Amino acid sequence: MQKRKAVLIILDGVGDRANPQLDYKTPLQYAKTPNLDRIAKKSVVGLMDSIAPGIRAGSDTSHLNILGYDPYKVYTGRGPFEAAGLDMDLEPGDIAFRCNFATVDENLVVVDRRAGRIKEGTEELLKDIDGMVIEDVKIFVKPGVEHRAALVLRGPGLSPEVSDVDPHDTGLKIHESKPLSEEAEKTARILNEFVKRAHEILKNHPVNKEREKEGKKPANIILPRGAGMVPHLEKFEKKTGLKGACVVGTPLIRGICKLAGITPIHVPGATGGYDTDMIAKMDAVLEALKNYDFILVNIKATDIAGHDMEPRKKVEVVERIDEAIGHLYENLPDDVILIVTADHSTPCTVGDHSGDPVPIMIYAPDSRREGEEFNEISVLRGSLRIRASDLMNIVMNHTNRAEKFGA
Amino acid sequence: MQKRKAVLIILDGVGDRANPQLDYKTPLQYAKTPNLDRIAKKSVVGLMDSIAPGIRAGSDTSHLNILGYDPYKVYTGRGPFEAAGLDMDLEPGDIAFRCNFATVDENLVVVDRRAGRIKEGTEELLKDIDGMVIEDVKIFVKPGVEHRAALVLRGPGLSPEVSDVDPHDTGLKIHESKPLSEEAEKTARILNEFVKRAHEILKNHPVNKEREKEGKKPANIILPRGAGMVPHLEKFEKKTGLKGACVVGTPLIRGICKLAGITPIHVPGATGGYDTDMIAKMDAVLEALKNYDFILVNIKATDIAGHDMEPRKKVEVVERIDEAIGHLYENLPDDVILIVTADHSTPCTVGDHSGDPVPIMIYAPDSRREGEEFNEISVLRGSLRIRASDLMNIVMNHTNRAEKFGA
Repeated sequence: MQKRKAVLIILDGVGDRANPQLDYKTPLQYAKTPNLDRIAKKSVVGLMDSIAPGIRAGSDTSHLNILGYDPYKVYTGRGPFEAAGLDMDLEPGDIAFRCNFATVDENLVVVDRRAGRIKEGTEELLKDIDGMVIEDVKIFVKPGVEHRAALVLRGPGLSPEVSDVDPHDTGLKIHESKPLSEEAEKTARILNEFVKRAHEILKNHPVNKEREKEGKKPANIILPRGAGMVPHLEKFEKKTGLKGACVVGTPLIRGICKLAGITPIHVPGATGGYDTDMIAKMDAVLEALKNYDFILVNIKATDIAGHDMEPRKKVEVVERIDEAIGHLYENLPDDVILIVTADHSTPCTVGDHSGDPVPIMIYAPDSRREGEEFNEISVLRGSLRIRASDLMNIVMNHTNRAEKFGA
Repeated sequence: MQKRKAVLIILDGVGDRANPQLDYKTPLQYAKTPNLDRIAKKSVVGLMDSIAPGIRAGSDTSHLNILGYDPYKVYTGRGPFEAAGLDMDLEPGDIAFRCNFATVDENLVVVDRRAGRIKEGTEELLKDIDGMVIEDVKIFVKPGVEHRAALVLRGPGLSPEVSDVDPHDTGLKIHESKPLSEEAEKTARILNEFVKRAHEILKNHPVNKEREKEGKKPANIILPRGAGMVPHLEKFEKKTGLKGACVVGTPLIRGICKLAGITPIHVPGATGGYDTDMIAKMDAVLEALKNYDFILVNIKATDIAGHDMEPRKKVEVVERIDEAIGHLYENLPDDVILIVTADHSTPCTVGDHSGDPVPIMIYAPDSRREGEEFNEISVLRGSLRIRASDLMNIVMNHTNRAEKFGA
């Protein structure tokens, strides 16, 4: 029994609904996808619920579920995964937040939630803030791309059950973080104190004085949101025996992989946007297969087209993906199985994630040949009606690595 | 509403994958099965997971699940079912093992795991061993076919969580059984003492002296493996109202049936091997239907072909099965439903059990007519996507015996 490797391609948000601009077909139905279709003919196919029927999943909860981590147990908010995606050192129990640098006036009313999309100087701005201690809690802050940052609180008696400081709109005063449970009072108190002290440091910071001189908006406050507790995730390799890598552009998914011990591989030209170099991503997968047993690939552009409510753009992206997956398939070693699916649907008629199930196909040299075309309707001829939480068991089966239960 | 009877035919390991020697069809797809196909046309059809999607089941855990006993609750190892298959009297809480008579040298290194496939004298060899008492534990041993035997420990404070004495290969010293939990220390101690005492008796036994004179390997040790605790299984008839019988060659499945109170019927010519007389098995089913409401049939030859990685042999076996099931179907009384399925897949490309789901069809005089052919792909047109744990409820429904939930 030959043990195989696996490539799992997540077409982020590719699942869709009947679109009036596409003769009431879905983008996957409408697009010309000769490569996806020829693989489907040699694959086990069907539909997958990201969580359960009708449940609208985030990209974070669905990726966790796909990788075999129950999001109802390990997910309390987005913060920890964003922080891990910025390569912050995290410990289980830490409370982490996503943050924006923003601009407030003297009454703490938000003038710009992105501080004029500040591009430079954020590291310097944080120099006297990172490492701050309030009561017995140590605080870490790290800048991300542009106005983005992540914040980590480490200490005893903390809780993720606090409301956002970020009011999520301009013209509003920043919110005071409120404890959502009794155990969270300390956390809210420290978070509010942190925001206040950081504001005191930032508003007089030379970087901001310089920005104001240049007519730019000062990054004079940090607005935390999306609190979550860093979970203990059993390492993916320990759980499955598969040494994992990922080719993933977005920090959120990258962070999930990092916390699971799946090694991110940097691909020049992979942007996480429409302009991402998909062929370069597939070449990186083929290279990674030399050293890893399991490669997770996330392509974000399909989700962006869904959020942008652009069905024709989504068709175009799908056709580019088809070409890239064709390239991968042509060069796939014999001992590798290929899974293509999505983390959730992002219908162009909705402009956001939906709870519609997603198509899935699993190709192995000896997989049952169930499919015809790869789209939400054609896969109905196949055997799969699964939840994402089943997927890793099925991957273990098709890589001939599953342990036998019984004799 | 006429209450019906049911025949459940388990084609052991018949599920398979696309095989390159069969134009990438499965053996069931490739074989000519006019009888299975004509029954499928009058049946509810679909796929069944032995346990859950992707989970690789043993024949024991899957048969338990099929019969409505949760293997996660009642299965701790294979021993009890093997012992029951040898008609040993068992009590819930007994710890049972499969054993081999084997040959060891003076350093307890295994020379032959099967003691020269000893055929005679095993009963005499065990005469002074069966009934042995160590501390407060009573020990029972019973010979099986050739070198096989089963061992039962009965007493207070025992646990199935002990490692095997059998080193599973020649050239290795026998293992000392180790407790895998604190509660198992006594069991391991008694098991090791038993093996030692039995060895002392066997090495000087007249049967072995005689074997050595004849140039045969002495059966001078008993090697236990596969510890399990005898579970309490609610009797099948009490659970379902169905008086059950089984036509089953392999001791393991026979043992499961016995513990469930399903009566084994001996069929001359039914060997559990390739050469089994399938028509004789079907005649035994037709005869048994006079006295029983539910007949479980297991045909092992399909599983053997899968383990042997012989797709053409599997096709040949399937075609012989088709003929036998045709014979059964022609003679089936009007008040009997017929279910054909498998306990698990044993793909010829794998050579062992896999977690791929198995085809299933349920024929009753009035069942919905969903099918076309009986194989892994054609049944996808049908309604069933079930787990084996659902099957008995569906059998109760189609035999018009299910209790109504509500009014």
